[in-house]
Amino acid sequence: MRSDSFPPLSKAMLGRLARLGQKKHRDSERLFLAEGLRTVTELLQSLPDPSMLYALVLDEKAAGQLDGLERFAGKTWLGGLDEFRRLAQTATPQGVCAAFRKPEGGEFRSASARSFVVALDDVQDPGNVGTIIRTAAWFGAEAVICGRGTADPFSAKAVRSSAGSIFALRLDTTPDLGKTLRRLQADGFTVAASALDGKDYRDFPAWPARRVLVIGNEANGISPEVLNLADRRLLIPHEGNRPAVESLNASVSAGILMAGMAMDNG
Amino acid sequence: MRSDSFPPLSKAMLGRLARLGQKKHRDSERLFLAEGLRTVTELLQSLPDPSMLYALVLDEKAAGQLDGLERFAGKTWLGGLDEFRRLAQTATPQGVCAAFRKPEGGEFRSASARSFVVALDDVQDPGNVGTIIRTAAWFGAEAVICGRGTADPFSAKAVRSSAGSIFALRLDTTPDLGKTLRRLQADGFTVAASALDGKDYRDFPAWPARRVLVIGNEANGISPEVLNLADRRLLIPHEGNRPAVESLNASVSAGILMAGMAMDNG
Repeated sequence: MRSDSFPPLSKAMLGRLARLGQKKHRDSERLFLAEGLRTVTELLQSLPDPSMLYALVLDEKAAGQLDGLERFAGKTWLGGLDEFRRLAQTATPQGVCAAFRKPEGGEFRSASARSFVVALDDVQDPGNVGTIIRTAAWFGAEAVICGRGTADPFSAKAVRSSAGSIFALRLDTTPDLGKTLRRLQADGFTVAASALDGKDYRDFPAWPARRVLVIGNEANGISPEVLNLADRRLLIPHEGNRPAVESLNASVSAGILMAGMAMDNG
Repeated sequence: MRSDSFPPLSKAMLGRLARLGQKKHRDSERLFLAEGLRTVTELLQSLPDPSMLYALVLDEKAAGQLDGLERFAGKTWLGGLDEFRRLAQTATPQGVCAAFRKPEGGEFRSASARSFVVALDDVQDPGNVGTIIRTAAWFGAEAVICGRGTADPFSAKAVRSSAGSIFALRLDTTPDLGKTLRRLQADGFTVAASALDGKDYRDFPAWPARRVLVIGNEANGISPEVLNLADRRLLIPHEGNRPAVESLNASVSAGILMAGMAMDNG
């Protein structure tokens, strides 16, 4: 599309978008920011509805690279290097930024007889949070529930790591993960948690149709409260008598357990 | 240990260590740099021999946090904030840096009847390279072989992601991964590669005792040459008719396939 179709970004809108770098503004505005050609393209492709795009800022080069921009007429602006530096918070921005509306929240309840849910218990690294959301989307999770201490899934780094999967599943936060999990148990969900004193995850019988996998903190694992209420404690065994490394990365162990739990055909 | 036991870091040594931020100096000096209390501690704990530590630089606080420093007498120095900023290339360094000797290279050959090897075909993100090495160590891989285009496993980011597992396995590079894999095949290794036109990785018969898993480039997958020589092409199926996200993260799919291949008891 011809870049002269778009007006230049105003100072007021630049300020509004730049504030989305902070969680408090993302929360109050119910918006989040995505940066880079790949991430923005992935999100635009998976957009449930064009109204979920709030603003798209492009440089002239990017305006020529993106298709279907007419869908976003009236909310696309041209930006320059100074604007992108401020929005992207990197020295070498790619010339594409977008703000999206956050999907609606509220207490998650499943309407499906068969449902796979992932819960994050104090997962602190935004790259891990995004990667786990991406993996959960691949394995058809209905929801990812973020407990207290978990990095904001709408931060720039988490959004980049989630590779456009934010709109593919329900994304909730809860101040009390234990309570949320007990409610899911009452709804027939089996809660599984990874634990050092668990049992080889391959040795469990077939999974019930409703199941939750809880992933814990990178250094300390799952909190005692959640561990106590878990129906199954899962261990990924290492080779040999002593592991050659202390632990697996949180996203990697989440992926291995999801592959085992989500692809189980029982 | 009392910090006044250690001499201050000289300008000459600071320059020598700082140069290890560049690959050409890591290669010519056969050294690599690690930064941060956690990473350095993990590497010191897994050190095959004290002589593999070349230099340890601490601030006074870190000198009090690390145990067993007497093993490294004569190669431990005290550093200040300016030195750490230069070595760690971050604005808020942790006050611990160390240079280690790279393990010996040379053409990898296995002496074991049972051997699991991971090969990287143009894996470009250093975080992925480090995380895959960490996962390979967990699953008892004998070696990780880095093909052309793969990020240097001795860069700061890869070393941090590998969580101290560098000394736990053999780490090789090869300019011609196809040739290396054909040599391994001649030695009885079965070569598996992840591929979009592959078969569900859970549907293969038991794995032979000698096996190689090849992980490909983040955007383009495995190169045609390597794909053509692979004995098995593995696919991680997604849930549903259409995937909710385009792909899995390279470290996550590597982890899922390693769990399947390495823990197979066949």
